[in-house]
Amino acid sequence: MAKINPHYRKLSAGYLFPEISRRVAAFQKENPQAKIYRLGIGNTTEPLPPAVINGLKNGVERLASLKTYSGYGDEQGELALRESLAALYLKRGVTLRPGELFISDGAKPDSGNIQSIFGVDNLVAFQDPAYPVYVDSNVIAGRSDSYNSESCSYAGFVYMRCSEENGFIPEPPAEKADLIYLCSPNNPTGAVASHQQLKKFVDYARKYRAVIIFDAAYADFITDPALPRSIYEVDGAFECAIEINSFSKSAGFTGVRLGWAVVPQALSVEDSEPGELNRLWLRRQTTFFNGASNIAQRGGLAVLSPEGQVECKAVINLYMENARLIREGLQQIGLTIYGGVNAPYLWLKTPGSLTSWEFFDQLLSETQVVGTPGSGFGPAGEGYFRLSAFGHRADIEAAVAQIIAKLKI
Amino acid sequence: MAKINPHYRKLSAGYLFPEISRRVAAFQKENPQAKIYRLGIGNTTEPLPPAVINGLKNGVERLASLKTYSGYGDEQGELALRESLAALYLKRGVTLRPGELFISDGAKPDSGNIQSIFGVDNLVAFQDPAYPVYVDSNVIAGRSDSYNSESCSYAGFVYMRCSEENGFIPEPPAEKADLIYLCSPNNPTGAVASHQQLKKFVDYARKYRAVIIFDAAYADFITDPALPRSIYEVDGAFECAIEINSFSKSAGFTGVRLGWAVVPQALSVEDSEPGELNRLWLRRQTTFFNGASNIAQRGGLAVLSPEGQVECKAVINLYMENARLIREGLQQIGLTIYGGVNAPYLWLKTPGSLTSWEFFDQLLSETQVVGTPGSGFGPAGEGYFRLSAFGHRADIEAAVAQIIAKLKI
Repeated sequence: MAKINPHYRKLSAGYLFPEISRRVAAFQKENPQAKIYRLGIGNTTEPLPPAVINGLKNGVERLASLKTYSGYGDEQGELALRESLAALYLKRGVTLRPGELFISDGAKPDSGNIQSIFGVDNLVAFQDPAYPVYVDSNVIAGRSDSYNSESCSYAGFVYMRCSEENGFIPEPPAEKADLIYLCSPNNPTGAVASHQQLKKFVDYARKYRAVIIFDAAYADFITDPALPRSIYEVDGAFECAIEINSFSKSAGFTGVRLGWAVVPQALSVEDSEPGELNRLWLRRQTTFFNGASNIAQRGGLAVLSPEGQVECKAVINLYMENARLIREGLQQIGLTIYGGVNAPYLWLKTPGSLTSWEFFDQLLSETQVVGTPGSGFGPAGEGYFRLSAFGHRADIEAAVAQIIAKLKI
Repeated sequence: MAKINPHYRKLSAGYLFPEISRRVAAFQKENPQAKIYRLGIGNTTEPLPPAVINGLKNGVERLASLKTYSGYGDEQGELALRESLAALYLKRGVTLRPGELFISDGAKPDSGNIQSIFGVDNLVAFQDPAYPVYVDSNVIAGRSDSYNSESCSYAGFVYMRCSEENGFIPEPPAEKADLIYLCSPNNPTGAVASHQQLKKFVDYARKYRAVIIFDAAYADFITDPALPRSIYEVDGAFECAIEINSFSKSAGFTGVRLGWAVVPQALSVEDSEPGELNRLWLRRQTTFFNGASNIAQRGGLAVLSPEGQVECKAVINLYMENARLIREGLQQIGLTIYGGVNAPYLWLKTPGSLTSWEFFDQLLSETQVVGTPGSGFGPAGEGYFRLSAFGHRADIEAAVAQIIAKLKI
C-alpha cells in the first residue's frame, strides 16, 4: 500500500499567488469595466534584444543540420558557457574553474533542489521574509515540524527577522544553524547586503561549519559599485557557500529557462572532504536532470557576448527607471518605500497600521493596482507590501498616477 | 555543523558511462589510428525536420516582439500543448483532461523526481535490468539499505527479473510492493509488454493499492498495432498508474528538453483521496520547477501538428531500419538478439559465457564497436549487451560490417 510523502501536508495551505488571482478575479467580476494595473509578480515584460534573439535562432538552426545537430549535452552545461561565466566572475575578481559551475534551467529549480544533497537533520535558517521556495522545499524534505498558523511559521526552522531597524539585512542567527539561505539583492525587500554584512555570515558559517546558500539572481540590478554581486567577493566564502544565479531577470529568460549554481571545490562540511559536495551536486544533476535546453544555452552565450551584455544592460536600466518612478511617485504622497535602488523590488510599509492583505484590498479597490502582500513571504513581511518594477513603462506610469490620484491615506 | 545526505554514499561507485569512456579512451590511446563505431548511448543523431525547426524558430521570434513576448508561463505547461497531447491520447482511446498532464523538461527528470511525492517507507520494485535513474533516485531518497557488491543489488528493493524465459517482461512481484517502475518499450532490453502482461500489473496494483510508474518514452517506436502504447489503454490503470513520456527520442529533442507526466485525477493511494496525488505533483512542480522552456514548448506543438507527426515518423522509421540492419546482420553470424522490433534498443546475449564487460572488451578490441554492458543496468543484465539503433545510417552499416567481418565467435 503506497503512501504519500506526509511532509506535503505540513505546507501552509494558502498559496500567495492563487489567493491574489482569486481576489483580483472577484473584483473584476464586480467591476467589469475596471482596468487592472499589475505590479505584483516579478515577471519580465520586455522583448529579448537582437543579439540574444540571434543566439537563440542560431541554437535552433544548428539542430536543422546534420553537421551541427546535437542531442544530449554535458549535464553540467556546455563548456563554452561555463567558461564565459567564469570569465564574467573573473571581472569581479572571483576565480572559478568551469567544473565549479553547473548550468541549470533556472534559479528556482536550483534553489529548491540544492537542499537535497544535505541530510534531513540539518537545522535551516531563512531570512524572514523570504522567497517561498527556500522554505517550502525544506518543509517537503522533512526538515521542519508543523506549521503554526498563529505565528505564521514552521516549528524547527530558524527565522532571521528582516526589519526597518536592521535595514532588512539580519545578523547571523543566535542558534547554530547548519544551512543558511541568503538572497541579495533581496526578493521581496529589495535590500542588498554590504560586504561587511556578508562577511559576518561567512565568519559565522566557517565557525560553525554551516553552508550558506546564496541566491544572487538579482545581482545585475545592483547599481552601487561598492556592493558585492557575488558572495565569493568575500574572503573565505569558497569554503562555506554555494551561489545560485539566473539569466531570468537579467536577460529576460524567465520563459526561456537558464540559470547556474556554483559549488566550489573548496566547500566542505563536517562529514565531508573538500570536493565531495561538488561531486554530490554533479551526481544529483546527472541523476535528476539532463542539462538545460541546448537552444537556451546558445542564447546564454549570446547574453554573455559583448553586444549581448550592452543590450541586456539597456533592458535592466529600463526596469530600474521603472523602479525610480514607482519609488519617487509613492514617496510624493508620503508612503514609506524601501528597495528599488539596487533591486527591481520595492518594499512598501503599509500606511496606518494596515495588514498586508488589508492594504492589498484597499489598493485594489481604490486604485485597481495589484501588488503582493508582504505577509505572503513570511511573518516579518506583515505590514509590508511588494511592488515589482517589471512592466512596460506606460503601465508603470499609469499605475503610479492611479495611486497618486486615488489612494486615500 | 552541516551534514551531507548520507544516502548518496550508498550509490554503487562505478557509473556505467564514465567507465565505458575510460576503456574507450585507453583503447584509442594504444590504437591512435583506429576508427571507433559507437552503438552505445541512446542519443539521437538525425537533424530535426522542417516543421519542428519552424515551430522552434517561431518560439524564438515570439520573444523578439513586444506583443508576443512571454515570461513565466504555466508551470504545468502551455494549455495548447497539453490539449494537443490529450488529443493524441484520445486517438488511442485514452481520455485525459489537460489538468492531468504536466509538461516537463524530459522523462529523466520526471522519472527521477516522481518518487518524491511518496513517503520514504514505500517498498519499491524495479524491472531488472532497468534504466539506472529509477534505482538511483530511490537510493538517494533513502528507500534502500546498502549496496551488496556480490549480488550487485541494493538491500530493501524488489528486483523483478527479466530473462529469456519470461521474454524480458516479468510477472508482478511476490512481495507487496508499493511503487512499481515499468518501462515499455524497455530500455535496455527492447522488450514490449502486451496488454495482458500490463493487465496483471494493473490488477496487482489495484489489489495492493500500489502505484505503477510507467515510462513510455519509447512508445512511438512500437510498430505492432496490437501492443499498448500507454498504460491507460488497460482498464483500471487510471486508478493506479502514473505515466511518463518524452519528445526526446520520438522527435529528436534529447538536447531541446521536453517531456510530460500524466497523474490522473482518479489515482489514489492508501492514505489519500483521488485527486490528491495530482495536486501533490502540481505542488512539487510549482515549488521545484518553473516550466519547460517556452521555445521548446512551441517546438512540441509543431511536433504534434499533422506535418510534424509525418516528418518525425520518417526519422523514427530511419532509426528502426537501423535496428533491423543491426539485428539481421548480427543474427547472420549466429548471435542471439532480442528487441529492436518495437524499440530502438537491441539486447544481445553474449556469446559463449562471457560477462557483459568481457564482451565489451572483445567487441572493442576486435571490431572497434562500442556498446553498453548489460550488467550496468542491473544484476540480471549480466551476460547481455545493449546496442542502440540511434546513429547515422552509414555508421550503423559500417559497424555491422565490422562485427560480421572481425568478431571471433
